[in-house]
Amino acid sequence: MDNQGVLAVISGFSGAGKGTLMRALLERYDNYALSISATTRAPREGEVDGREYFFKTREEFEQMIEHDELVEYAQYVGNYYGTPKEYVFSNLKAGKDVLLEIEIQGALKIKKKFPEAVLIFVTPPSAGELRNRLAGRGTETPEKIAARLSRAAEESKQMDDYDFILVNDEVDRCVEEMHALIQAMHARTENHKTLIEKIKEEMKQF
Amino acid sequence: MDNQGVLAVISGFSGAGKGTLMRALLERYDNYALSISATTRAPREGEVDGREYFFKTREEFEQMIEHDELVEYAQYVGNYYGTPKEYVFSNLKAGKDVLLEIEIQGALKIKKKFPEAVLIFVTPPSAGELRNRLAGRGTETPEKIAARLSRAAEESKQMDDYDFILVNDEVDRCVEEMHALIQAMHARTENHKTLIEKIKEEMKQF
Repeated sequence: MDNQGVLAVISGFSGAGKGTLMRALLERYDNYALSISATTRAPREGEVDGREYFFKTREEFEQMIEHDELVEYAQYVGNYYGTPKEYVFSNLKAGKDVLLEIEIQGALKIKKKFPEAVLIFVTPPSAGELRNRLAGRGTETPEKIAARLSRAAEESKQMDDYDFILVNDEVDRCVEEMHALIQAMHARTENHKTLIEKIKEEMKQF
Repeated sequence: MDNQGVLAVISGFSGAGKGTLMRALLERYDNYALSISATTRAPREGEVDGREYFFKTREEFEQMIEHDELVEYAQYVGNYYGTPKEYVFSNLKAGKDVLLEIEIQGALKIKKKFPEAVLIFVTPPSAGELRNRLAGRGTETPEKIAARLSRAAEESKQMDDYDFILVNDEVDRCVEEMHALIQAMHARTENHKTLIEKIKEEMKQF
């Protein structure tokens, strides 16, 4: 369908600044909707249903799986996490660009199922910079930082499977780059099928 | 290689405004180089070797074919026309984005040989608008216009093979859209192979 929004799937190392980038996009521009995950884990203090997550019982979640109502899902530490289709596709249909932050395995699952999804990987300019940022937060134990870095090393092996790499060296520039990239994707041929058919049809008279 | 330029292959109906768009890009921004074709046809008055075309003898051109020095080539009304590799790839290597205007068959040949090429099709918003523009020029006979429209009808069948469709309804907007699109393509993963390898390597210490 023409004038559909773009499904932008965003991954990156913990500490790469994904959250900041996405918040900035949502603040600066009106065309974005942030995909909200469903989960069976209990709400934490201050979390609101439909804002941080859609909170579901195990039974409800398994019904969603059964009815193919999820873009993807996974289990993590005994709880389900997944992306409800309804929210994503109703927003895309309304012309909104949907931002979906998700780890690599989930992102690749989405790409397989929805090849029109645009996979964006956010990385700091170097591994050293990632370590500095994580250490600089001063909020985590050396063990936690080591665990994050070791996970990043694992994740780096799949960077090649993404469509685009955004280097987050300067947040403001990176936000605008991500915005320009997602907007440019509106010109993809598959987004203009109706126009192409219309032109082909009209041209039959020539 | 990282920081390579983008090879932007631009096609579109005669009368879609490709020439105007490309001239505007070259005037407004420093990062573009316009690919120049080689041909065996004789120079017309005012044409300069290396500006409109690289003018070649038949023998020289056939040597270029033999030595695989052309991105693509074709014969048209008894003359060869082709795109010299040297100029395109030395500019890409220097980080310039190369604009290559070419008809559809040539564009598809290039995509097959160089999948990293970005194929952009420029179209007016409707077939009626194309007819109005061609008639509005007032420089061509009804027969010539009919021939152009009939060719456009033929060409419209292959619009789907392009990566991007740009609707040229307002030149200024379309120039900026094409620029933003080509710039966004710099973030493609294949353009960041060196960075990815560097990060993977550095992360082995974690």
